Amino acid sequence: MKEFTTKSFSDTQFAVERDVVCIQGLGFVGAAMAAAVSAACAADGQPRFNVVGVELNTPTGRVRADRLDAGHFPFACPDPKISHAIETAHIAGNLRATTDVAAFRNAKIAVVDVHLDVGLDASGRPSASINGFERAIRILGQELSPGALVMVETTVPPGTCAHVAAPALADELRRRGLPADAILLAHSYERVMPGPNYFDSIVNFWRVYAGHTLEAADACAQFLNAVVNTKQYPLRRLGSTTASETAKVLENSYRAVNIAFIEEWARFAEATDVDLFEVIDAIRDRPTHANIRQPGFGVGGYCLTKDPLFAAAGSQQFLNSGALDFPFCEAAMAINRRMPVVNLDRIEALLGGLAGKSVILLGIAYRSEVDDTRYGPAEIFYREAERRGARLLCHDPHVRHWSELGMQIPAELPDPSGADAVVLAVPHRAYRQLDLQAWLGSSRPLVYDADSVLDATTRARLRAAGFAVESTGRGMGL
Amino acid sequence: MKEFTTKSFSDTQFAVERDVVCIQGLGFVGAAMAAAVSAACAADGQPRFNVVGVELNTPTGRVRADRLDAGHFPFACPDPKISHAIETAHIAGNLRATTDVAAFRNAKIAVVDVHLDVGLDASGRPSASINGFERAIRILGQELSPGALVMVETTVPPGTCAHVAAPALADELRRRGLPADAILLAHSYERVMPGPNYFDSIVNFWRVYAGHTLEAADACAQFLNAVVNTKQYPLRRLGSTTASETAKVLENSYRAVNIAFIEEWARFAEATDVDLFEVIDAIRDRPTHANIRQPGFGVGGYCLTKDPLFAAAGSQQFLNSGALDFPFCEAAMAINRRMPVVNLDRIEALLGGLAGKSVILLGIAYRSEVDDTRYGPAEIFYREAERRGARLLCHDPHVRHWSELGMQIPAELPDPSGADAVVLAVPHRAYRQLDLQAWLGSSRPLVYDADSVLDATTRARLRAAGFAVESTGRGMGL
Repeated sequence: MKEFTTKSFSDTQFAVERDVVCIQGLGFVGAAMAAAVSAACAADGQPRFNVVGVELNTPTGRVRADRLDAGHFPFACPDPKISHAIETAHIAGNLRATTDVAAFRNAKIAVVDVHLDVGLDASGRPSASINGFERAIRILGQELSPGALVMVETTVPPGTCAHVAAPALADELRRRGLPADAILLAHSYERVMPGPNYFDSIVNFWRVYAGHTLEAADACAQFLNAVVNTKQYPLRRLGSTTASETAKVLENSYRAVNIAFIEEWARFAEATDVDLFEVIDAIRDRPTHANIRQPGFGVGGYCLTKDPLFAAAGSQQFLNSGALDFPFCEAAMAINRRMPVVNLDRIEALLGGLAGKSVILLGIAYRSEVDDTRYGPAEIFYREAERRGARLLCHDPHVRHWSELGMQIPAELPDPSGADAVVLAVPHRAYRQLDLQAWLGSSRPLVYDADSVLDATTRARLRAAGFAVESTGRGMGL
Repeated sequence: MKEFTTKSFSDTQFAVERDVVCIQGLGFVGAAMAAAVSAACAADGQPRFNVVGVELNTPTGRVRADRLDAGHFPFACPDPKISHAIETAHIAGNLRATTDVAAFRNAKIAVVDVHLDVGLDASGRPSASINGFERAIRILGQELSPGALVMVETTVPPGTCAHVAAPALADELRRRGLPADAILLAHSYERVMPGPNYFDSIVNFWRVYAGHTLEAADACAQFLNAVVNTKQYPLRRLGSTTASETAKVLENSYRAVNIAFIEEWARFAEATDVDLFEVIDAIRDRPTHANIRQPGFGVGGYCLTKDPLFAAAGSQQFLNSGALDFPFCEAAMAINRRMPVVNLDRIEALLGGLAGKSVILLGIAYRSEVDDTRYGPAEIFYREAERRGARLLCHDPHVRHWSELGMQIPAELPDPSGADAVVLAVPHRAYRQLDLQAWLGSSRPLVYDADSVLDATTRARLRAAGFAVESTGRGMGL
């Protein structure tokens, strides 16, 4: 079970003694959390914590840990506050990273930011593969000192802390001859949003938390008060870790359902003389309706594409009464997955077929101004378009390597001559500001705006220049 | 087609000459609109319009018209601003009401607030019965003078103005030897909310509108600027009447879907140790999630119970391509209709059966602080509980006659002795402030809170006194 490393780690590597916080898992959340915790200040303005990022001893884990340990964010960093926090902590000497689990031994707090996926079982029902998560928790049970706090940030099926993490910790503590509650357990989910507000989405944002015991809840609140601006963003304590876990998946399910709901209206708008975007702008004037979503190219990223299945997974695993149905969540997942295919269907109809057609796809990241392509709609679109016989040229100003398709993405826009369609799939600033007409020259491909990238003036100007311009969520020629 | 009346009406009945506005249909919207339009002031502070409410010459229509003509709001009025506006206009002499369609002849503007229902056809698909609506429009085409504006406020299947109202007007105008565009046609939907902000939900709220022609749109904007506080709540002009009609049904569908979405989470919370209300309060801290709904007893009223079917009805009637699917709208309608039955199921399980049980239902209005019982969940609950053998005693502080069940409702709370369950179904202030323990005395029925009427302190106090207290959306004993 236990991961062994070649490089050993001890807390003597910190020059100044402070409470040690370990961040377990240095993905998009854990790495940013390491930045936020290391930036927390004590009353004297000095760093509040010594922070150790702990990764698995795998090739990827070692690269991440080495980068962070050298004072760099392990990923392309869209927010200067993150890089600044890490550089500052590196110079101050209160941020390290390692793959050596011995780092946990002196930790007062371990923040769990490991990966947890949920798949579909043979019968098509969601089934969470929480083995990796449980292994991570067991390492904490083996290594942490009595009195330490485990704060789970990972999005998990509701019930996981009470039914998986708590028993796993108790089991490891029992092997060590320690009482089951020697380590405190709490859940507090992140609302991290990679992009320009990456750092503030941790430090200047609302937090929900709950403890497995009252003592754990109190310790968790104390930690969050040291890291998060809780004066301006007061903490919310919930009655159980299951409630906190539920809040997270409900938040993301709400979002996913509202995105999917708009799909049926996009189809209606396209079949009539309606511009659904102007309709939605009008509806958003109502404060109670300000967050209605708009049609687009599709849903991607690590959260909205899986979290709506977590409540069903939790109920399946942890309820004696068996799995409950989540019809809206399930419908939302299916509809959102189909969105890029629905866009493709419309393009196919507009082109009179896809076989042999040349399509330029502008935008493969899952949302604007990020380089993240995980679970993105572009992948679904690409594979299906290719299956239907189209040739695709792809571009994204933020992506140089499309890992899901094992493809290098050139920084320059492709040559548009011979293109039958140009699909604007992501509202990157670079595309909103692009002079399409200058780029396209004498070519006259269909310009298909799948995510309201072009404004009305640009659409009218392109039409005046002889382009066919169509949009997701807008009637023909609107 | 034309409705004839015994009592004739002429504009000479107004002492001061002003632009005449007719409100066609004096239901909950039209009657309030009559109040708002008659309260509109010209630059000199004098009334801007002479207003005539026009009703059908039916028993109900005559009662409504007579009441308004005598200076009274035709319904129980929950907002003093409405009654004040009507009294003031009655004294000033700029508000009348009639069943004589001759009143339309001198109108500059006719506001259409007639009823429009949508039913299900033989195959279970929504089919709008828009004959009554078309009859109303034809009367306007017969009576209005050239240059008048018809502003449709009625919620209609998208496409109705373009495909029903405009042709009907053109047809009637042709019979009169007038050009098809002699009467201007616009759509601007109401966002009227009966209750304490009834008046302000017209005058101090955002408005969306669109014209069948540019001239009609301009005339509609001019009228709305005279009635609505558009300085603070700027108007939104949309590209077509279909877009404006779509905005209305999308608004209400969005609401209905978000109410239904929470149902699956209520069931999950009840099966676990989760209080979904505290979870939702925590989620609402996020501005992007502030309008997430909460579990309840059910959905009622004239709008949310039908509007989600209107887009499908519009697409069925007005799209050559045939009806489109609206899976979320359809699921929301079905789930929301079932909500009171799901509540009943849980009560049945808690009581160990319903046959021979005595159930007190507190709250039959469709929402708090109103007397409106139309399409309410209480009716579904009542009929189903009775079918399962329960005896029901009903109460509502605002309802004396439950028209759907033809039942007098006593003003006093029923005698609780012998009751097996008390169901709190509507969060009327009177119930939130009720001393349940004093009323129930030595009886110990199940107290079932179906709409978060009781706070945590009250629930705890009742439990301490020996009551079983359970709630929709909360795990056992939470």
